[in-house]
This record gives sequence, C-alpha cells and structure tokens, in this order.
Amino acid sequence: MEIKIMKNILDRNQNKADEVRNLLTSKKVVMVNIISSPGAGKTTLLERTLEEFNSKYRIGVIEGDIATDRDARRLHKFNIPIVVINTEGGCHLDSHSISKALDSFDLDNLDIIFVENVGNLICPSEFDLGETFKLAVVSTPEGDDKPGKYPLLFREAMAVLLNKTDLIPYTNFNLENFKRDLSGINAKVPLFEISCTNGDGLKEWFKWMSAKIS
Amino acid sequence: MEIKIMKNILDRNQNKADEVRNLLTSKKVVMVNIISSPGAGKTTLLERTLEEFNSKYRIGVIEGDIATDRDARRLHKFNIPIVVINTEGGCHLDSHSISKALDSFDLDNLDIIFVENVGNLICPSEFDLGETFKLAVVSTPEGDDKPGKYPLLFREAMAVLLNKTDLIPYTNFNLENFKRDLSGINAKVPLFEISCTNGDGLKEWFKWMSAKIS
Repeated sequence: MEIKIMKNILDRNQNKADEVRNLLTSKKVVMVNIISSPGAGKTTLLERTLEEFNSKYRIGVIEGDIATDRDARRLHKFNIPIVVINTEGGCHLDSHSISKALDSFDLDNLDIIFVENVGNLICPSEFDLGETFKLAVVSTPEGDDKPGKYPLLFREAMAVLLNKTDLIPYTNFNLENFKRDLSGINAKVPLFEISCTNGDGLKEWFKWMSAKIS
Repeated sequence: MEIKIMKNILDRNQNKADEVRNLLTSKKVVMVNIISSPGAGKTTLLERTLEEFNSKYRIGVIEGDIATDRDARRLHKFNIPIVVINTEGGCHLDSHSISKALDSFDLDNLDIIFVENVGNLICPSEFDLGETFKLAVVSTPEGDDKPGKYPLLFREAMAVLLNKTDLIPYTNFNLENFKRDLSGINAKVPLFEISCTNGDGLKEWFKWMSAKIS
C-alpha cells in the first residue's frame, strides 16, 4: 500500500516536472538542481559561481531550506532575484513548489536558475524538479566512500563537484578510492575537484557550466 | 491527503516503537539511535567507543545503510553481534525493521545496542525506533549553522557530539556561533566537543554514556 502511495506522489511530481521542463526549454533557461549533504558547500559554491557569472549571465536562485532563509541572506549581496522555499520539515524540494517559485521570476530575462536543494544526499535525488540537470556536490571530509553508499544521486548527476580539496591533507580522504567508487556507479560523469576556499579547480567548473548555457 | 497518509505511517511506526521500547526496558538494554549527515563520523565514533566499551559492556550494533555493508565491515574486528539493515533507497530506519533486527540478538546478554541510522540529518529524526535516546552527531566542516537549519534533530537529541574539532583551524567554523545556535534550539542539551581522529574530548563522552547504562 505504501509503495502505491509513493508511486502516486512520484507520478504527480513527474507530471508537474515535465510542465516545468517544457516551460524552461521554451524560455531558454537552464535550471541546475544542486544536491549535497548538509554543509558540503552548496551555498559557498553559489557565491563563487555568482562572483564569476553575475556579470556575464542573468541569474536567479531558488533556495530550499527546512526552516530558515540563512542561505538566501548570504547571496543578497549579488542583487539577483532569489526565492526561498521553506519546506517546514520536508526533506527535499518538489516540482510543485518549484513551479510556484518560477512565477516570481521574469523568465524572459534569465539565462540560469540555480536551485539549492535541501541538504540531503538521499530524498532530493528521487524528485525531478524539471531541472535541466542535477549537480552532485560532495566534500572531502565526508569521506571517500560516499558514491557507493548513496548511489542514486551519483547515478543521476550530470556532473560531480568534489569540494574542500584543501582539507585532504588533514583527513583520511583517498582520492583514488573516491574515483574508483564513483566510476563503479557512473563511469562517464565529469568530476571537478574544487576548493571554494582557495579557488582550486573552479575555472574548469566555470568553463564546463558556461558551455551548458545556450 | 498526503498529510493523512504520513500520519498513518507515523502512527504505525509509533505503535511498533512503543513495543520495542517496552521490550528493551524489560531486558535492561539501552538502545542509542545515532543520527548525523553522511560522513560526519558515526562509524568512526562507534570504532572509538567500542575500543573503550567492548571489554566493559556487552554490545550489539545495528547498521542502517541504503545499499552496502561497508560500515558493518569496519566493525567486524570487534567480534560483536552486528545486524545490517539495507533500506534499499529508504532515507531512514523505522521501528518495524528494528523490531525484526532485534530478533537476531540475545537481549538477555546485552547492555547496549548502538543503532547507526542512515546518513541524513532530516528524516531519521521523525521516526521513533523505540530507542532509549537519540544522539546527534555533527562535524565541524559542515559549518556552525546546522542546529537552526535542521532543528528537529537538535531538539530531539539527548546529547550532541560535535566531531572533527581537529579540523577547526582549517575551516571557518566558529564554535561560539555554533553554541549560540544550538542553545536557541535546545538550551540544556549536553554538548561534547570531540575528535575521533586525535581522541580529544572522548573521555567526557565515555563517562556520560557509561552513566546511562544500568
């Protein structure tokens, strides 16, 4: 019975996601669904990316958070449209809340919408938001064993960002183990090794992301 | 409608959790439900705790994981009873799977069962497993803003372990901000500042945990 209910919820989510995707395609807006554990660095990645992209592209942000607008406040300085979705305990965003949030944007005058999903490596991967693609962010202090332990996200992601490479010397993170684990789940996914603290690897990420914008 | 379904699921979970709790109380077994983000250090905490407790208490472990038995394999060296629950995508353990897992233990000959929940700061907090208490583990690289952003766990926890204090010098983690944030959510909860890497603070945790065992 529970399985059937879950299927109904996912079906309704998928229908609305398809609508959202059609709308964004018609408006030529690229929407990126950013998924990670709590504290892997999604907001800091957005800060670094907005510093680089804000003068080149027209950008909007949707911030998914359980209870606060803390992440959104960190981005106010960029003077871009930001919509906060508070899930009030919910463990992921869904396509219905995204669809409502899109009403607040002038889609004719946007190139990119970055969606920062709720900090969770599991549930957000199951819910299509109508995004152009999903981006997996994982940080080195979380350990090199995450792809195999949380396979769905790494299978669904169009790219993987390994953040906090500056902390590798202080942890037992093994990059070769991580790469082997990831390639067992998704052999062809591009991997960017970055540090949002010292800037390492960000140029490659900017270049890859720019190529996705029509 | 979805809210009613969720209530039914939670009610059924609660009934079984009450059964589990009664059983454990009658057997004088303390069950600790350990909850954290992926990679905050739950398994390493168990390794350090088993090194200290394994000669003093009779211990069992339940390992909740989506898809692998990696965490359980890390504990094999302790030669204690371990049951792995693979949720196959599910984002939390529930009382029904715990109840089944308990059938594999000789409860008359155990003092403690440590339950390592699925790595997730959100959903596990909503499902009572029949545990004696919940333990929140959070690590410094995740940032000092986690209690306010994920309030339910920090409200429900009987104690909070702040792990990876050895990494504070290399991050922008601010201990005073973290403490202020935590005390806004749960003013009286004991906080242990620990490093499972260099051993800092573990004695205080062992002492507190020992006092919980009858």
